[in-house]
Amino acid sequence: MRPINTATLLMHCPDQKGIVAIITDFLLDNNANVISLDQHVDHEENQFFMRVEWELDGFVIPKDKIGEYFDTLIAKKLEINWELKFNERKPRIALFVSKYAHCFLDILSRYESGEWKVEIPLIISNHEKFNYVADRYDIPYHYMPITKATKQEQERKQVELLKESNVDLIILARYMQILSSTMIDEYPNQIINIHHSSLPAFAGANPYKAAYTRGVKFMGATAHYATADLDEGPIIAQDVIHISHRDSISELKRKGKDIEKVVLAKAVWSHITSNVLTYKNKTVVFDA
Amino acid sequence: MRPINTATLLMHCPDQKGIVAIITDFLLDNNANVISLDQHVDHEENQFFMRVEWELDGFVIPKDKIGEYFDTLIAKKLEINWELKFNERKPRIALFVSKYAHCFLDILSRYESGEWKVEIPLIISNHEKFNYVADRYDIPYHYMPITKATKQEQERKQVELLKESNVDLIILARYMQILSSTMIDEYPNQIINIHHSSLPAFAGANPYKAAYTRGVKFMGATAHYATADLDEGPIIAQDVIHISHRDSISELKRKGKDIEKVVLAKAVWSHITSNVLTYKNKTVVFDA
Amino acid sequence: MRPINTATLLMHCPDQKGIVAIITDFLLDNNANVISLDQHVDHEENQFFMRVEWELDGFVIPKDKIGEYFDTLIAKKLEINWELKFNERKPRIALFVSKYAHCFLDILSRYESGEWKVEIPLIISNHEKFNYVADRYDIPYHYMPITKATKQEQERKQVELLKESNVDLIILARYMQILSSTMIDEYPNQIINIHHSSLPAFAGANPYKAAYTRGVKFMGATAHYATADLDEGPIIAQDVIHISHRDSISELKRKGKDIEKVVLAKAVWSHITSNVLTYKNKTVVFDA
Amino acid sequence: MRPINTATLLMHCPDQKGIVAIITDFLLDNNANVISLDQHVDHEENQFFMRVEWELDGFVIPKDKIGEYFDTLIAKKLEINWELKFNERKPRIALFVSKYAHCFLDILSRYESGEWKVEIPLIISNHEKFNYVADRYDIPYHYMPITKATKQEQERKQVELLKESNVDLIILARYMQILSSTMIDEYPNQIINIHHSSLPAFAGANPYKAAYTRGVKFMGATAHYATADLDEGPIIAQDVIHISHRDSISELKRKGKDIEKVVLAKAVWSHITSNVLTYKNKTVVFDA
Repeated sequence: MRPINTATLLMHCPDQKGIVAIITDFLLDNNANVISLDQHVDHEENQFFMRVEWELDGFVIPKDKIGEYFDTLIAKKLEINWELKFNERKPRIALFVSKYAHCFLDILSRYESGEWKVEIPLIISNHEKFNYVADRYDIPYHYMPITKATKQEQERKQVELLKESNVDLIILARYMQILSSTMIDEYPNQIINIHHSSLPAFAGANPYKAAYTRGVKFMGATAHYATADLDEGPIIAQDVIHISHRDSISELKRKGKDIEKVVLAKAVWSHITSNVLTYKNKTVVFDA
Repeated sequence: MRPINTATLLMHCPDQKGIVAIITDFLLDNNANVISLDQHVDHEENQFFMRVEWELDGFVIPKDKIGEYFDTLIAKKLEINWELKFNERKPRIALFVSKYAHCFLDILSRYESGEWKVEIPLIISNHEKFNYVADRYDIPYHYMPITKATKQEQERKQVELLKESNVDLIILARYMQILSSTMIDEYPNQIINIHHSSLPAFAGANPYKAAYTRGVKFMGATAHYATADLDEGPIIAQDVIHISHRDSISELKRKGKDIEKVVLAKAVWSHITSNVLTYKNKTVVFDA
Repeated sequence: MRPINTATLLMHCPDQKGIVAIITDFLLDNNANVISLDQHVDHEENQFFMRVEWELDGFVIPKDKIGEYFDTLIAKKLEINWELKFNERKPRIALFVSKYAHCFLDILSRYESGEWKVEIPLIISNHEKFNYVADRYDIPYHYMPITKATKQEQERKQVELLKESNVDLIILARYMQILSSTMIDEYPNQIINIHHSSLPAFAGANPYKAAYTRGVKFMGATAHYATADLDEGPIIAQDVIHISHRDSISELKRKGKDIEKVVLAKAVWSHITSNVLTYKNKTVVFDA
Repeated sequence: MRPINTATLLMHCPDQKGIVAIITDFLLDNNANVISLDQHVDHEENQFFMRVEWELDGFVIPKDKIGEYFDTLIAKKLEINWELKFNERKPRIALFVSKYAHCFLDILSRYESGEWKVEIPLIISNHEKFNYVADRYDIPYHYMPITKATKQEQERKQVELLKESNVDLIILARYMQILSSTMIDEYPNQIINIHHSSLPAFAGANPYKAAYTRGVKFMGATAHYATADLDEGPIIAQDVIHISHRDSISELKRKGKDIEKVVLAKAVWSHITSNVLTYKNKTVVFDA
């Protein structure tokens, strides 16, 4: 059994001599039992990335002081950009959905079965369709239809709801609305979207038809953080399946569902296990 | 739009000159509009396999006489083993489950979302656990615990229930009981099981541990028709994912769930769209 | 053992009732022993595609008359676009190469080992680099440097050489020159190019860098027929491999080589075994 | 550009608190510029694995003393099992081959094109067949036919040749002879074999036929270190391809060649870039 209470430090900074030694000494000096450590140097960007997880039990610095101490003693000097996560705290997820069921039901199944240790305090949709599903799980379902006229006001309310619910992560489970910067700026690298193509190929609204028309021999799905530039956010996970001339557009749609749900789940898993770092428009995803 | 009412003939026979011409002439002479045709010759076994689907609208022979006419005019002479399916009739599926949720919930999601056009008239389980899930869908849930002593009697009752419900297909969604020949003989090539390994590697009860111990670099899942020889039935679908030294046994279990549900769904889809033929211990699976 | 002398008919025409029966009757009436038959209907384009291969031994129509008879008796009436291939004749391939070795050496290995039953009567390159390799195989190596000024004249000479050598197929094994329409019009659907990306993503000259910059999680290779629109020809084969943040551009280049050579070889195999049909800008590739 | 002269330490030891700090401090104290660092903890075996690479330029300890210093100051105390590699030294490879060309020619292509920075001082074969290929590269070709009677003596001579040539790595490129322990004990974890199946499935002499007979839907290739137990050595790399009922045994053989050569090359690359560690019967393969 792996220990229950751990802290995970996610950090990046300009690459510099001895950086691993400095961090691991800090941990060792304070009696940390390191469970896993991953690092990566992007030699093009001269940027150092690290994820280190250690047991809280026995660690000298109290849990609620770790961030402060690390910042003061180490991070400021070395220009480290960091985040600290405690595995004890369950991620709180808001689920956004429109009319496609596959990703939505798949996520709820992972939640229900205990595969994911998360809370889902609310579901937001621009359609009434899945209210009955939310009822099953006793999750509040906010039906918030969106028109050009109401969009701004509805998003403002959504942010309010998200804040009230203390949400860490937003999953756009085939939510067919483009988020404005109101939402996106509020939750940087905390909104995961699934796009039904192998981005950057076939961005836009109908990738299945575009793939069919071009006659490609594989199709894909892409999970990425939502940014102001639609379909341009940092990619977290992608996968593809082989297709052939036999696949009609409706077959592509059917087959696409399976990779969409698997890729989205993979990205969410990497995120909720604190394995994703972003830098500029790219991700470092350690093996979850 | 593809037409709604079709007949599908699945057949195999000893390979012989002109066999495709004979079948397609029979269809053409009776004014069939063929929608798709697939054939395969197994040169080792000298066996010819064919799947042909045509519109019922305009076909000269009445729907309920097609089998009789085909048998009399063609099949008997040529020693053809055949099955006739009408896409109008929704497959009726019995779902068997024990304590693992992932395949079970995934199948119900496909049913609920309309991805699969099927009926699920009953769920059978040796555990009470998922009764509440069945309730959501108003599907009768038969809790039938099994011990060595009760096994034979319980299986007899299960067959009775299946017969009453007019079931075409049984899905063992990680059902952790070995079916006896009572059940298997009653439903030849109509029981689909998912095994959590890339059979024939790692047959048996704990394939994750076996794969971990051997240090393999991929793991798999196998959907097959259940036969008297456990894990030896005709394979319908398989898939694998890459793994590494980083994957603990619990990681293998977690990752395995995703391929298990996708592979099982793929096999069921091939079956319910009448794309699977079996011969001896192997399948011919046309592209669904 | 499969028989040695066969004819293969590749055809497409507007979809029409009874088309399979008409073709198979023609074959049966003339005593053909059909070895394999594949067909496909593109319901969007209302186009029927077929590949049928039969033994020449025992076939009533003499080999050199088959095309004429088929055209007169069947093809003209039904507006069939067709090609006839005899497996006895080895495809004659011209190999174009520049400075990258991997695809070039891989193709020569398949030729040398007998994996491909083909002739390679000439190699053309805009660099002297691989002359010594051609010498090993006693294949004439035409060093034809190309500048803006000489391009037209050099291509004219190349076509001349190809004609003299009676070439059926041109493989651009990472040939770093854009062919003009002179060449392309002369060899429609007979020039196979390998592009080092998963087209349509990352078309253009430096796909590795583009993929790296975008931070995608897989990279691909695409083999396609060369057309006047660069990187836009009908795709024959594609494959991808997973990549991660750990892969530098030079790693992408190294890994790319392996999929490039495998994808190119796959496309060539499909072509030389007469399994590829094109229609508009897409291919139908039957299982080789 | 990555620096040219580096040292790589591969090590494993019982997991213990502060182990990363100890190693990185040792490097930092001696002014090492670490280029990459990978570590892994096997929690089942309680074993810590690490690969760390640093620039030799500026490192305080002279190159030829690093091993001694590390052993004295660190390794002995912590029961570390270690190896030190310098990227300056090109691996010296002996190539063993029988009658199959694909892996053999592929390796020579990678050598010739400079994709692999290695030396190949000799080729050993139990057949004369490929002597002419060796001649192309001016590599001595030792034709050493093997019978039951001569096996022991021939292997003794082979070891002699390998020693004279100062070989680091032996590649069995579909060498169809089982090595005796004479050879294997002499080169532990230095002999890489390619097996033409997804071990442990289909061990033995004819995996294609076995896969065909069982009707599996994928086939694989496995590269592993040779050990006394045939087909049981630590697996370095594996890959699979999807197959179907359409694939005859000869098709499986043809398709198998491509994964065999790619998987073997992948394993060799990991080995020659010092990314493979073994522990008991398993490998830790860091991303090459």
